[in-house]
Amino acid sequence: MVGYQTLRWDGDAATGVLRLTDQTLLPERFEEIICGSVPVLFEAILALRVRGAPAIGVSAAYGVVLGTQLARGLGRDEFLTGLHSVCEELGRSRPTAVNLFFALDRMSRFAVACNSDSSAELHDRLLAEAQQIEQEDREMCLAIGRHGSALVHSGMSLLTHCNAGGLATAGDGTALAVMFAAAREGRQLHVFADETRPLLQGARLTAWELQQRGIPVTLICDNMAAQVMREGRVDLVITGADRIAANGDAANKIGTYGLAVLAAWHGIPFAVAAPSSTFDLQLPSGAGIPIEQRSESEVTAGFGRRTAPVGIGVYNPAFDVTPAELIRYLITERGVIERPDQAKIAAHLAASR
Amino acid sequence: MVGYQTLRWDGDAATGVLRLTDQTLLPERFEEIICGSVPVLFEAILALRVRGAPAIGVSAAYGVVLGTQLARGLGRDEFLTGLHSVCEELGRSRPTAVNLFFALDRMSRFAVACNSDSSAELHDRLLAEAQQIEQEDREMCLAIGRHGSALVHSGMSLLTHCNAGGLATAGDGTALAVMFAAAREGRQLHVFADETRPLLQGARLTAWELQQRGIPVTLICDNMAAQVMREGRVDLVITGADRIAANGDAANKIGTYGLAVLAAWHGIPFAVAAPSSTFDLQLPSGAGIPIEQRSESEVTAGFGRRTAPVGIGVYNPAFDVTPAELIRYLITERGVIERPDQAKIAAHLAASR
Repeated sequence: MVGYQTLRWDGDAATGVLRLTDQTLLPERFEEIICGSVPVLFEAILALRVRGAPAIGVSAAYGVVLGTQLARGLGRDEFLTGLHSVCEELGRSRPTAVNLFFALDRMSRFAVACNSDSSAELHDRLLAEAQQIEQEDREMCLAIGRHGSALVHSGMSLLTHCNAGGLATAGDGTALAVMFAAAREGRQLHVFADETRPLLQGARLTAWELQQRGIPVTLICDNMAAQVMREGRVDLVITGADRIAANGDAANKIGTYGLAVLAAWHGIPFAVAAPSSTFDLQLPSGAGIPIEQRSESEVTAGFGRRTAPVGIGVYNPAFDVTPAELIRYLITERGVIERPDQAKIAAHLAASR
Repeated sequence: MVGYQTLRWDGDAATGVLRLTDQTLLPERFEEIICGSVPVLFEAILALRVRGAPAIGVSAAYGVVLGTQLARGLGRDEFLTGLHSVCEELGRSRPTAVNLFFALDRMSRFAVACNSDSSAELHDRLLAEAQQIEQEDREMCLAIGRHGSALVHSGMSLLTHCNAGGLATAGDGTALAVMFAAAREGRQLHVFADETRPLLQGARLTAWELQQRGIPVTLICDNMAAQVMREGRVDLVITGADRIAANGDAANKIGTYGLAVLAAWHGIPFAVAAPSSTFDLQLPSGAGIPIEQRSESEVTAGFGRRTAPVGIGVYNPAFDVTPAELIRYLITERGVIERPDQAKIAAHLAASR
């Protein structure tokens, strides 16, 4: 990481806290928020102080440790009951990202399967498991970057949406990990960053991360993407994903679907980079992915100033679903699936790493 | 008009002023700016205090009157020399809209052709000509509304981009005139308004105008248009235009082209409403339309708060060009051209009203 860390556990299991970079203040201000309890973390996830499906997953794993600190002295059954209620609470924070549930489920199963002499020992091991999840997340990012960078040739211009960067993970990111890897390998590239209304994660976070890494970046408003494509200035579109169905339909930040249509129209390949924990094989297609609806004020007063008439109707879905047919490459930590479909995805996920 | 007036001349030719509603302050505040000289009007056009191709045209016509007030006592040749330099200056304000040049050219030709005993009398007649241009603009809006509303059936949901409403003209607008006419004729309709980054004319102006007229409106971010189309919630897309080439290629607010592609992808008809003064038959296609590039700060700090890192590259074209093939209907004050091409446009414009 370059000068910033999305999240870090500080201390031991019994008394430690989760420190998060408050992403709502970037790029103007760097501030860490210290999560010493589940409600503080819950608010941080809800308010997007920490965001990005993988980062939410890792944070939630630490949230399980936080939420059971006071249960270290209790018996095993009471400890597990407390743990399950923490998992339920954290599961209500953001409905679309599946990595959240993946992490909570893993922590929960780990606790149930764990043979330990005491709840304190179990709790210590839960911290180690959360740290393991974080470590795997970092390695996942590097592997996605390694696989994806094979698609990036020197001189290419890429376009990305929202922030699928280091700030969305514990490590290098997903879509941006591909760019970072290609740059590390010495390839020249240029990136168009969609600003990504309403919360401008592209302008605030992606543009900033690329700038930090010295990768040339041009910021555009979301509605300019079609124009830069038409000008022949985009060779590859690459985004992250928050949940991917068994057939390859991918939920990601609102605007991704439109971008995929525009890429198809202009004959530009569209790639999605995400860890295999993003797949939800329970869902046959994207139709079953719940889409979080967020507050109207993000649209009507997103910049600290009211920019729409009072009393106006607003539609503010946080995500949309890109059908698999529009996705040319799915990049995971295990490799690249070209023109994904259910069979290829099943084979990809079944294969050992 | 309902409670607001885009522009109005106040006074006689010799000492009158042009009053403009400062659209950069809407919908929060109503303030008129009083243009008593060309530089004040020039700044108002440049800063989008008055915007919309037809409104810029009418304002420029009054600008010619303003700019020649001090020449009323001069001889004819000196008066005309002054008038031409005023036209040149105003022509530099915004390069994309053709109505600006249309109005300046009309005022200039009128002055040259006018037989008058004195420059004062010529100047009085120039005011009358500008008022005639304004009156024609109002009638043009009503006629566009009348023709276009035939495309709007009760129960339809429309989507529009930027502001092609009353605020963009001296009258009812162009794209919005169609909605106003359909509503006056008793049809139920619903409108999605793209907020239209970077300057949010959709959120600030279109949403507000529709609200004023009691037409149900839902505000969305630009990148949500594809999603509402996919949900089957858009029956017709209708926008304005700033310049239309002889073959039907239409320049309009950035984002219009992408919207037209998305409409085509989803099988939704795409309509452009604009007066015949928007056509530039000198240009065989949209490739020759100059596209105004605007300040980076509109993107990086659009609302009084910096939302992107300092030093970032920005691309900020104010317009894009939608190819005629993507336009199903061209609506002018003379009628509707379906699937426009060069021959249909030439015939449409050649026919008497």
